[in-house]
Amino acid sequence: MAVYTRLGAEELAAIISAFDVGTLISAKGIAEGVSNSNWLIEAESTDGKATRYILTMYEGRTEVQDLPFFLDLLDHLAAKHCPVPRTIHDRDGASYRFHDGKALALIEFLPGVSVSEPTPPQAHAVGTALAQIHLASSDFPAARNNSMGIGAWGQLLGNCGREGLQSIHPELATIVERELALLSAHWPQDLPRGVIHADLFPDNVLMLGARVTGLIDFYFACTDLTAYDLAVTHAAWCFTGDGRNFQPSLSAALLEGYESVRPLIAEERAALPLLARGASMRFLATRAYDWMNRPADALVTPKNPLAFARRLEFYADPANAAIFGI
Amino acid sequence: MAVYTRLGAEELAAIISAFDVGTLISAKGIAEGVSNSNWLIEAESTDGKATRYILTMYEGRTEVQDLPFFLDLLDHLAAKHCPVPRTIHDRDGASYRFHDGKALALIEFLPGVSVSEPTPPQAHAVGTALAQIHLASSDFPAARNNSMGIGAWGQLLGNCGREGLQSIHPELATIVERELALLSAHWPQDLPRGVIHADLFPDNVLMLGARVTGLIDFYFACTDLTAYDLAVTHAAWCFTGDGRNFQPSLSAALLEGYESVRPLIAEERAALPLLARGASMRFLATRAYDWMNRPADALVTPKNPLAFARRLEFYADPANAAIFGI
Repeated sequence: MAVYTRLGAEELAAIISAFDVGTLISAKGIAEGVSNSNWLIEAESTDGKATRYILTMYEGRTEVQDLPFFLDLLDHLAAKHCPVPRTIHDRDGASYRFHDGKALALIEFLPGVSVSEPTPPQAHAVGTALAQIHLASSDFPAARNNSMGIGAWGQLLGNCGREGLQSIHPELATIVERELALLSAHWPQDLPRGVIHADLFPDNVLMLGARVTGLIDFYFACTDLTAYDLAVTHAAWCFTGDGRNFQPSLSAALLEGYESVRPLIAEERAALPLLARGASMRFLATRAYDWMNRPADALVTPKNPLAFARRLEFYADPANAAIFGI
Repeated sequence: MAVYTRLGAEELAAIISAFDVGTLISAKGIAEGVSNSNWLIEAESTDGKATRYILTMYEGRTEVQDLPFFLDLLDHLAAKHCPVPRTIHDRDGASYRFHDGKALALIEFLPGVSVSEPTPPQAHAVGTALAQIHLASSDFPAARNNSMGIGAWGQLLGNCGREGLQSIHPELATIVERELALLSAHWPQDLPRGVIHADLFPDNVLMLGARVTGLIDFYFACTDLTAYDLAVTHAAWCFTGDGRNFQPSLSAALLEGYESVRPLIAEERAALPLLARGASMRFLATRAYDWMNRPADALVTPKNPLAFARRLEFYADPANAAIFGI
């Protein structure tokens, strides 16, 4: 959440001139996304109409070869009326271009704000929107491996080391070893696959009241188990941030919203507790890694990994399988 | 340049509801200002009109007791048609209020972008706008001491220590001692005083082409020598960023623009070389302090103090007094 690159008005105007959007009239660096630089841009077309856009400059963590997947996916979903921003292609028709050796894209600005304490109607709307993108992406021609899939979790947690994990919490290493073994042994292979968002936290959803106006930040989107995306979204939306309190009404609303558009098949439903343990492990892994590798004087405190260890324990308790209608 | 406080949609909506501006429809944390949190907010009034605002939350470095000075000054200058943002008062008529123990203000959004390579017409426009605020503030009833005045320079540089300054550049400690002694001995006392911006770098000026659409970030504004503000602006606009190259055409345009609105008196003109040495020392002092006190793993490299040591040497050279028409 930062602006890594500084661009003066002259550079921004030169960048914008490659797109058929008019003259730059405002630009604010915005604190959005975790690893890219973003500006909220306003441009005025020759007929005097002012339109806003998001300009994203891709810094280290987004691979340029993945950009066609991410950006074409936005256009594919937007064309099917999913609430995602369109990309603005440049005068040559390209969805991204380079400036000073860095890739950048101009993306539609969408209204809406990210909630931090969702209501059941909001969780319902997010479930609906998630199912919509799952259906709409079924004929998307490209594929991308999940770089944050089950293989990555062991690597990230291995990098933390047993002692590192124990320094976060005395029992964390034991829990992680037990769960990684179980998830590896039982991870489902035969469930429906498709394009998934894979990171649909409240931060990545713009809403006006209980209406979803935008699903954003598709930079973890990939081809993986469709129901795993629902499990990620469940873990992201149905607990208090610290993972201590499961919110049954949000869970019921999210699942109902999802199934109102794309009913789960029996095998998906049966797998949800395990998939949700996996989803918890995925964020536990990245948070533990960021926690262990934080600079001593970092300005930003990394998010607490235990918030996802608590979700993991919740989903691992067989008594809680009932929340998925099992 | 950061967003220090995180506010969810619910909190932002609650904050906005204290003002008569309508319903929150968008909010982006923006990377503006060095020590406060800022959001670009959009609200929709009951007649469907969407208007943008800047929401500023004051973090540690702005003293709450100074807010009436800063915010009333904006309203005073805006009422006199200076290009500064108005403040939006809350339903009780207050220009700032508190949320979670922190002061915040809602401020008019202005179009425009900050240039990084100004042209002479842009420097002329900035000189004009600076003189306008000097004239318009002449009947502003409040006063504020300059907390970054000559007394502060010695303190900040003393905190760096001789060895610290020498670690930045072998000759820096010697230059600083010589200049501090000279500035203290000769700092003018009898020049016209008034309200000054005191930090009018290109970052703090919004422009559309060669038109100034907004002077912003008045959080160093204070009562001090009026011509010192022109000296600060000169040091900020008339060199390449690294201080190596003086730009005569920008200097001539800035001074001409300023004097087209507020001609300098002879004593002010004669003092400009010394005031500009002081202005250079002021930014050398804060930059050296930030340089010496930077965290080892800081994400942001502090700005190089030598950029202002070079300006100081330039202004100290008697051969260069001619640029001020002396």
